[in-house]
Amino acid sequence: MSLAVPTSSEFPTLAREGLVYLDTAATSQTVRPALEAMDRYYETYRASIHRGIYSIATEATDAYELARERVAKFTGSTARETVFTKNATEAINLVAYSWGRANVGPDDLVVLSQMEHHANIVPWQLLGCKLAYIPMLDDGTLDLEAYDELLARSPKLVAVAHVSNVVGTINPVAEIVSRAHAAGAVVLVDGAQAVPSLPVDVAELDADFYVWTGHKAYGPTGIGILHGRRSLLEVMPPFLGGGHMIARVGDFESTYAEPPTRFEAGTMPIAEAIGLGEAVEWLAAIGMENVREHGRDVTAYALERLGEVPGLSIHGPAEADGRGSLISFALESAHPHDVAEILGREQVCVRAGHHCAQPLMRRLGVPASTRASFAVHATRDDVDRLIDALGTVQEIFA
Amino acid sequence: MSLAVPTSSEFPTLAREGLVYLDTAATSQTVRPALEAMDRYYETYRASIHRGIYSIATEATDAYELARERVAKFTGSTARETVFTKNATEAINLVAYSWGRANVGPDDLVVLSQMEHHANIVPWQLLGCKLAYIPMLDDGTLDLEAYDELLARSPKLVAVAHVSNVVGTINPVAEIVSRAHAAGAVVLVDGAQAVPSLPVDVAELDADFYVWTGHKAYGPTGIGILHGRRSLLEVMPPFLGGGHMIARVGDFESTYAEPPTRFEAGTMPIAEAIGLGEAVEWLAAIGMENVREHGRDVTAYALERLGEVPGLSIHGPAEADGRGSLISFALESAHPHDVAEILGREQVCVRAGHHCAQPLMRRLGVPASTRASFAVHATRDDVDRLIDALGTVQEIFA
Repeated sequence: MSLAVPTSSEFPTLAREGLVYLDTAATSQTVRPALEAMDRYYETYRASIHRGIYSIATEATDAYELARERVAKFTGSTARETVFTKNATEAINLVAYSWGRANVGPDDLVVLSQMEHHANIVPWQLLGCKLAYIPMLDDGTLDLEAYDELLARSPKLVAVAHVSNVVGTINPVAEIVSRAHAAGAVVLVDGAQAVPSLPVDVAELDADFYVWTGHKAYGPTGIGILHGRRSLLEVMPPFLGGGHMIARVGDFESTYAEPPTRFEAGTMPIAEAIGLGEAVEWLAAIGMENVREHGRDVTAYALERLGEVPGLSIHGPAEADGRGSLISFALESAHPHDVAEILGREQVCVRAGHHCAQPLMRRLGVPASTRASFAVHATRDDVDRLIDALGTVQEIFA
Repeated sequence: MSLAVPTSSEFPTLAREGLVYLDTAATSQTVRPALEAMDRYYETYRASIHRGIYSIATEATDAYELARERVAKFTGSTARETVFTKNATEAINLVAYSWGRANVGPDDLVVLSQMEHHANIVPWQLLGCKLAYIPMLDDGTLDLEAYDELLARSPKLVAVAHVSNVVGTINPVAEIVSRAHAAGAVVLVDGAQAVPSLPVDVAELDADFYVWTGHKAYGPTGIGILHGRRSLLEVMPPFLGGGHMIARVGDFESTYAEPPTRFEAGTMPIAEAIGLGEAVEWLAAIGMENVREHGRDVTAYALERLGEVPGLSIHGPAEADGRGSLISFALESAHPHDVAEILGREQVCVRAGHHCAQPLMRRLGVPASTRASFAVHATRDDVDRLIDALGTVQEIFA
């Protein structure tokens, strides 16, 4: 199966001859309509938002707020519950600094999973509370019995990835949220890998906070998203202080605007929000069910072909159904960095390293892995190119 | 005097027929070389930075770090002392959260000036320390005798604007820094209005922290800059936690990378940094002395012409020499918002409001003002258009 996505025209970088881009889990290509929307902003109505009275300022404000509407609709949230940040990391830190410092004391517990990205670990370490990890089972899924035991300790927050950026596991987020709520915990979901590859409905998942990022979702760099339950956002103190997020600034204290404005201090990434709005419209037009089916198909094919490579072992779930569109693996004969370097010379772009998930690498018992991730533009031919290039690696290290 | 800057080709939005853009102090136009550099990134080497081994990832890393070098050189700082953020507001909050929480207790004093932007007030209010303000004299300059009295109270920090975004005053930053250092205080300078309009040399000013933003300096949205003295950055704890800013992530605690990396968590605004790097190269090629002389000339002409408008009073310093390239004013006959709206209908883009400086508006005894600001592309003809449009305002409110 392949989508009606002409790669060379929709993703300009891919027109570079022979390039096979399998690093979309690090950052995706930016789709042409997003680039065109940003150029339109810069070239025809470049102005600041929210304060200007003249026509191009009104145009800019309307475009920025339309982007918020589009982004919210795309993920089943609402504009009133959608805050723009610079990336997913800032979105998680916003919750940790604002909600966290108001609600989590040094003796309180925050439950993470063993497959979290550093972005969903370090902010909770910096908060200075107790941490516990839902263990990962050998099949790459989370141990939900152990999770229940952690919930019995009455955590204030559960913070989990929707899709692991290393083992690819699609976690049962609705179930995780439901159990957390029954135990009185708030839930933050890191959807950075999920939103570009699966249908996501934040309301259906019932997540209290859901974060993701534009640069992995065919949008530009410099724009992240926090969806927050309105009732929580309303009582959260400010995070970044500055212009626009205030109601009134006294010399010694201030009052603050309503959310989402309260959390958008200073001049925001205006072009970036507008670009992301186009990217999600483009994804919605393809249909996220189709994006998922395509990703599942290419991933299934890759699992099959990689399974034929001698001395190669795959981390995480065995079947494509339980995975997002990415695969991490180890080759007996070669270090992941050497693998990635040789693949790179063959124009096959993959990532090697700890993937910003050192606790998970320790769980897997490896210092690093090689990861291939499959975007909407990835094809079975791309997988064949990966397999061929792995052949080259094995010749070199034979 | 006019610069060799063809507005219609260098600033695409200005090609809109009849548009006179005098709101560059809110956000500047983005110069074409910056837009082209961002397009080049998105269209030919769209990849993530710092971790990728393949060729386009290396290209992206090199371009991002070259931008850091260019930006640092442009302001007399060094790459090791230059941190990218999303805007100037985040840069100030970074200092308030990281340096501030480590060094400023509830009974400690932070000295601000009466002409600060909310971005340089609210973060210090949120820090929860004592605040005091250097008063502004009636001529629009800071009261340096009162400043000395405040320094006698041994503040931990002095945080001042280089150029006021409302009254336009160029503050004597080198003198302010020198006196603060003699009193044992650290100094943060908000250079958002200064960097695009004056030659700025952070080392010469001897500022400990100097922040500014790309979107006011002919660069893109979504990118800010913190220059920090290396010896301070080295001992500052992290602000945002996440990927890239770490050395090692344990389950319960982590160690962090050296600055500037320590303060750049997650995937950064890559395209935006690259675009800003081109913008400062473009400014450097014109020469900031020339930019300043042009801005001074247009501002002097505007002061003269505005002085002829009956019932119009100008806030701030009387002479262009003491000002950045902006003028706030009041018309007896009309509210600032009405002025700006009518000017907007005449295609003259100015700002009305409190300009994110409510304490200063209280000092001026007005709820709002109208502000015209003059970019490198502003001309005496633009000033004439402003004066003509003010004539229309006066006819309506006569």
